[in-house]
Amino acid sequence: MKQRWMKLINEKPNYSEWVKVYTEKGKIFIIKLQRGGILQTHHGSLSHSDIIEAGYGKMVRFSSGSHAHILRPGIDDNSMKIKRLTQIVYPKDIGFILLKLDIKEGDYVLEAGLGSASMCGALSRYVGESGKVYTYEKREEFLKTSMSNLNKWNLLNRVVFHLQDVGEGFKESDYDAAFIDLPYPVPQLKYVREKLKFSGRLCVLCPTVNQCSQVIHEMNDLGFTQVEMWESIFRPFKTNPDRIRPVDMIYAHTAYLIFGQKISKETEEN
Amino acid sequence: MKQRWMKLINEKPNYSEWVKVYTEKGKIFIIKLQRGGILQTHHGSLSHSDIIEAGYGKMVRFSSGSHAHILRPGIDDNSMKIKRLTQIVYPKDIGFILLKLDIKEGDYVLEAGLGSASMCGALSRYVGESGKVYTYEKREEFLKTSMSNLNKWNLLNRVVFHLQDVGEGFKESDYDAAFIDLPYPVPQLKYVREKLKFSGRLCVLCPTVNQCSQVIHEMNDLGFTQVEMWESIFRPFKTNPDRIRPVDMIYAHTAYLIFGQKISKETEEN
Amino acid sequence: MKQRWMKLINEKPNYSEWVKVYTEKGKIFIIKLQRGGILQTHHGSLSHSDIIEAGYGKMVRFSSGSHAHILRPGIDDNSMKIKRLTQIVYPKDIGFILLKLDIKEGDYVLEAGLGSASMCGALSRYVGESGKVYTYEKREEFLKTSMSNLNKWNLLNRVVFHLQDVGEGFKESDYDAAFIDLPYPVPQLKYVREKLKFSGRLCVLCPTVNQCSQVIHEMNDLGFTQVEMWESIFRPFKTNPDRIRPVDMIYAHTAYLIFGQKISKETEEN
Amino acid sequence: MKQRWMKLINEKPNYSEWVKVYTEKGKIFIIKLQRGGILQTHHGSLSHSDIIEAGYGKMVRFSSGSHAHILRPGIDDNSMKIKRLTQIVYPKDIGFILLKLDIKEGDYVLEAGLGSASMCGALSRYVGESGKVYTYEKREEFLKTSMSNLNKWNLLNRVVFHLQDVGEGFKESDYDAAFIDLPYPVPQLKYVREKLKFSGRLCVLCPTVNQCSQVIHEMNDLGFTQVEMWESIFRPFKTNPDRIRPVDMIYAHTAYLIFGQKISKETEEN
Repeated sequence: MKQRWMKLINEKPNYSEWVKVYTEKGKIFIIKLQRGGILQTHHGSLSHSDIIEAGYGKMVRFSSGSHAHILRPGIDDNSMKIKRLTQIVYPKDIGFILLKLDIKEGDYVLEAGLGSASMCGALSRYVGESGKVYTYEKREEFLKTSMSNLNKWNLLNRVVFHLQDVGEGFKESDYDAAFIDLPYPVPQLKYVREKLKFSGRLCVLCPTVNQCSQVIHEMNDLGFTQVEMWESIFRPFKTNPDRIRPVDMIYAHTAYLIFGQKISKETEEN
Repeated sequence: MKQRWMKLINEKPNYSEWVKVYTEKGKIFIIKLQRGGILQTHHGSLSHSDIIEAGYGKMVRFSSGSHAHILRPGIDDNSMKIKRLTQIVYPKDIGFILLKLDIKEGDYVLEAGLGSASMCGALSRYVGESGKVYTYEKREEFLKTSMSNLNKWNLLNRVVFHLQDVGEGFKESDYDAAFIDLPYPVPQLKYVREKLKFSGRLCVLCPTVNQCSQVIHEMNDLGFTQVEMWESIFRPFKTNPDRIRPVDMIYAHTAYLIFGQKISKETEEN
Repeated sequence: MKQRWMKLINEKPNYSEWVKVYTEKGKIFIIKLQRGGILQTHHGSLSHSDIIEAGYGKMVRFSSGSHAHILRPGIDDNSMKIKRLTQIVYPKDIGFILLKLDIKEGDYVLEAGLGSASMCGALSRYVGESGKVYTYEKREEFLKTSMSNLNKWNLLNRVVFHLQDVGEGFKESDYDAAFIDLPYPVPQLKYVREKLKFSGRLCVLCPTVNQCSQVIHEMNDLGFTQVEMWESIFRPFKTNPDRIRPVDMIYAHTAYLIFGQKISKETEEN
Repeated sequence: MKQRWMKLINEKPNYSEWVKVYTEKGKIFIIKLQRGGILQTHHGSLSHSDIIEAGYGKMVRFSSGSHAHILRPGIDDNSMKIKRLTQIVYPKDIGFILLKLDIKEGDYVLEAGLGSASMCGALSRYVGESGKVYTYEKREEFLKTSMSNLNKWNLLNRVVFHLQDVGEGFKESDYDAAFIDLPYPVPQLKYVREKLKFSGRLCVLCPTVNQCSQVIHEMNDLGFTQVEMWESIFRPFKTNPDRIRPVDMIYAHTAYLIFGQKISKETEEN
């Protein structure tokens, strides 16, 4: 075990590290530190070398005089700040999906519909070094953007990419869990179930209730149990401690989440 | 890498393994399989040996004739099915907290207020073998119940237990993240901040808005930035696909969640 | 105009008046005062003559010594306290429906599905003496219970009752607004639209999303515009001012509300 | 009773009447018809005489060819379309407040904080010809705008206006109900209670939870019972019947609503 507990060290970021610059106005910049780099904002400029010199948790000043703090970006920042070509899965849903899919070290997870890799980033992080995410995406530009995003988070080596339509079936089998985020998920569910382990967990993300109805029908027919449907509403609050109240506008809806565990059909050999 | 992908294996649980028995009425039993064991329910009885013989995903029948399926329990089942002496943290909040605290392999996490270990179970799972959770709890019966719960999930070795009042301060330092679930969190926050790394993340769970106000005041004073306050509402739906609607009653409130990252005060040496 | 403003009068209820007894524990009793009447509760007994002697706003004591206050019941109490044979429409939805149907003095309103008259009570109250509610209900016991409930609120004379299946069509025409709360609303919508004024407003109450989809399809086909679908979530809070928080459990769902205004189809003569 | 039921009449609006023009894109225009008047929009122009000729429920075409329907505006349109100098009270809250204040024909209602008259419009509508709303507003421009808004709805004669600070006390007494929407409501509550009837109902609108705590403290001290605190979340849905889902963004918060009924303090004469 690395030695800790001796004293609080004033840690400083290195070049090529990603940092979060959090301004006094609450704006967030996630940047990769580079020799000679300058962060240009409407608050003025800030050199990367000043960021390194200050260190984590420390205050820096833009050329305008307004200040900011240097923070480590986290998985929540990643998913809000990635390059997006698509609607992403939001942290509010990601956390719940991870738990309901029971994602853990060593899991082999199928993902159909990579999008911009917001979910893939979380899945590959939590399957650990011994796990793997097998992802299917038919649009090449989505695959490229996602690979770039995953590379930033050092998670590329945990993901196996398939540039193909899921209608052609999945190459691996015995998945511990599967996450489906496709425009028309129903026709693919039979292929997903086929390759999922018995008792393996499925999550299907559906924007509309009509789709939920179709997905649940199909899951019941194919052989899933403990079929659940959830939605979440998250409300951030304004944090003036003397005037606490929810913010004015929120996302009312991202997607409905359908879950189930694969069971054997009575007519099915095993 | 272990050999997979050859074919879908009909996996069977072993004695001493925990399984989930999911009945046709949607009731859940989480049990540890034992030689000669019998599960007694209002549906009648079911022998553990029948469960093993059937295997995961397969159907079993109670003596009444009503049926159930054998499933692997997951982290969501754990937190809903643990022995509770206290109010627990719910999966809906756990997932979000994990992301906002940026919990990852190798993290050293402080927990003040162990309760029944629902949050500790999730934290210790996701810090992995190389991480650690340092938990403080002053009530011996809570510590014992929690140790028993964590033992069921094979996570005991990732947790360091301190049977002490948090008012006495924390023994370790350089925590990556801290989770606080105490009846009166405000007086403890200065000790928490002291031992947290710069840029380290804090989550305080508050049942009432009055407490939120006090916690946010204190966090601003002590030196935290990006202070956020959230609440979540999760709605499960009835899953008859021809009559989809939210269930009648839900939890309207579990707790408000306050987050922040530690920064240096200008007056503070480092 | 009746003389007011002279001084605050200590008003007292009369025999045959309905009063609300609100106990120190927050229990509500709505009773009709009768000579010699006694309110029996688990707090002990309280004579109706003691209630009258105390007067509105005043404190009374049960035989156990625990106390209560005498209040005027309102429309919110009515709808929560009526004799129910059916699921009722809740105040949270009633208020919004009144506004979206633009209910006002003098309106002629169609109601299909009287149920226990919770909505009919509100409609007939707000159409005033010069308005009318025409209600259709095929189950005789619902009609009787509703008439008894409406009689308690002195609103019987504003309602015309039809004991008949709505499938037989509606007897009146030129309704200003229509409220539909039927198990299978879709087949009735054409009859409803036929008799509604042009620009007249419709509200259909649907428990399931599948029904919403069918109702909206039908409304679009028949000739309605500004078709809207809403749901409401109301959260009561615990009112200890030092520990403010939402209550633990709430109704997650009563019904979805569909609204629209009747328009002319291009093919339609007028 | 006016003669109805003979046949559905093709009703047409008159000059000086307010109509709602609802476009095929879902845009709403509320206009007062005038001889020679032209509605100019980004869809092109539409003459008021064409609107009258078409009649309610009928289709009209803008000069661009895009179409719209002619509808009667309702109270929900009023409150969303008034001239606003202030934050308004929304229909979602107005309906519930009306019920919880038990507003009915003949009521005398106090309003402190007129704002732009969105609530005053609803109150004065439902107290009827025999009721009255007594409103206090200290800012002259708010009073003028409100009078203009109430005039549009033909409700001016039901409202008594006081251009004064509420700190000077209220001129009338024996109010049946009171509605308070002030930046600092707490100091005014004693004056409000003083003039409210026993058992009379109070609603205080509070944007922040801190204020809720203070208001509830004060109401308990002054003599109110059945003190309740509520918030509402309303979600509109997208109404493509084949793709039903909540809209993306909603108002997460308008205000908390505090209710109570006035009771006698034990030390108080009556």
